[in-house]
Amino acid sequence: MKFLHQLIKFQTRKHLQFIDLTDKAERLVHQSQAVNGVLNIFSRHTTVAIRINESERGFRQDFRDLLGRLVPKDAYYRHNDLKIRTENLVCDPNASDCLNGHSHCVHLLLGNSETIPIIKGKLALGRWQRIFAIELDCARNREVVMQIMGELKERNHL
Amino acid sequence: MKFLHQLIKFQTRKHLQFIDLTDKAERLVHQSQAVNGVLNIFSRHTTVAIRINESERGFRQDFRDLLGRLVPKDAYYRHNDLKIRTENLVCDPNASDCLNGHSHCVHLLLGNSETIPIIKGKLALGRWQRIFAIELDCARNREVVMQIMGELKERNHL
Amino acid sequence: MKFLHQLIKFQTRKHLQFIDLTDKAERLVHQSQAVNGVLNIFSRHTTVAIRINESERGFRQDFRDLLGRLVPKDAYYRHNDLKIRTENLVCDPNASDCLNGHSHCVHLLLGNSETIPIIKGKLALGRWQRIFAIELDCARNREVVMQIMGELKERNHL
Repeated sequence: MKFLHQLIKFQTRKHLQFIDLTDKAERLVHQSQAVNGVLNIFSRHTTVAIRINESERGFRQDFRDLLGRLVPKDAYYRHNDLKIRTENLVCDPNASDCLNGHSHCVHLLLGNSETIPIIKGKLALGRWQRIFAIELDCARNREVVMQIMGELKERNHL
Repeated sequence: MKFLHQLIKFQTRKHLQFIDLTDKAERLVHQSQAVNGVLNIFSRHTTVAIRINESERGFRQDFRDLLGRLVPKDAYYRHNDLKIRTENLVCDPNASDCLNGHSHCVHLLLGNSETIPIIKGKLALGRWQRIFAIELDCARNREVVMQIMGELKERNHL
Repeated sequence: MKFLHQLIKFQTRKHLQFIDLTDKAERLVHQSQAVNGVLNIFSRHTTVAIRINESERGFRQDFRDLLGRLVPKDAYYRHNDLKIRTENLVCDPNASDCLNGHSHCVHLLLGNSETIPIIKGKLALGRWQRIFAIELDCARNREVVMQIMGELKERNHL
């Protein structure tokens, strides 16, 4: 039985940037020598989502347009209203913008982790699947954790 | 290798209540003595979601407003239409309301589980991250399962 | 410690079909003889989601109507615009339709995997919970991976 984790740090450049973490995930699986198991990939932020999809420029812009319609940044959010808000009033000094009510709402819709099977020493991703961290806030310093749990040799199971 | 699970029971009080399960999850990790691994947290209901986000009152209300716009409770739902519905016609006697078509739709948008890495004996949550069960229906009796899989001592991995 | 995986192949018939994989998942858990652990269920496609919900015909149609409102198929998507698109221009010969910008957007909103605890040799699903693959594109050949990680005998944990 093998456990192997990695903390990945990166700086995002803009709202709704997609950061492709697939190569890093595949390297960690290779390094672990796990033959069977799972990789869990987890965002350490309330405004960074982990999602799997195709890497295609036009689609990324389609998704930004969709979120702009469903969860507009410039709507009224109590989370942004300093006249009524009393909790967690700390603005990250590395953040380029602190008004992020829409970012939290989108994060709840998207999700914080994905878990991916490892089969025969490889991630079981389909042909077009790539693993993304999606920046839902502004440009910031970010951290994602990968955790592998696997077995080193395949035994006859059945 | 260590497995440890816990069934958590609670009663919700209202539609779109956020129940913070972070302290219970951290206690279970401590109790397990797992040094590396994962915690899986899983809702046993089709109208309770598991999500991770910040605990801030204004944001919770922002999210309720957003859902009210995207998936209004008072829209027409076949699921609520007893003139046409034939399946699963059982109303929970503990439920305060049985018309929950919107609750099922929101549950599909949000999701039923999250998996969180355990690193050095602690959940790898970020500074602002809290684990929530979100009641998408009315006041009801609810159950959430936590399952830990971990190793008791860290070995040299590489 | 026990690992057991299965690759499930099926052909979908239409956009937004729900394919119930619960019986297959329960059979794999039984076959694995795992007493405690987790089952991870993972879509190998960027336009097939994995979700857990109730199996009820009216609700499925409610959800299709909701997606039609939130993410309409006939809106403009750059992903469908062959005048500007340059990446991944391969159309699956088994696909009945290649214009799937809306399918990718919905997949990001829904998600690619769920992880379910195994307790006392059974999936910890609640009474109404069923596991679905949801076809977000047109009729196609599809693959889903299930991975079990579990222990064969329960030990006294605490």
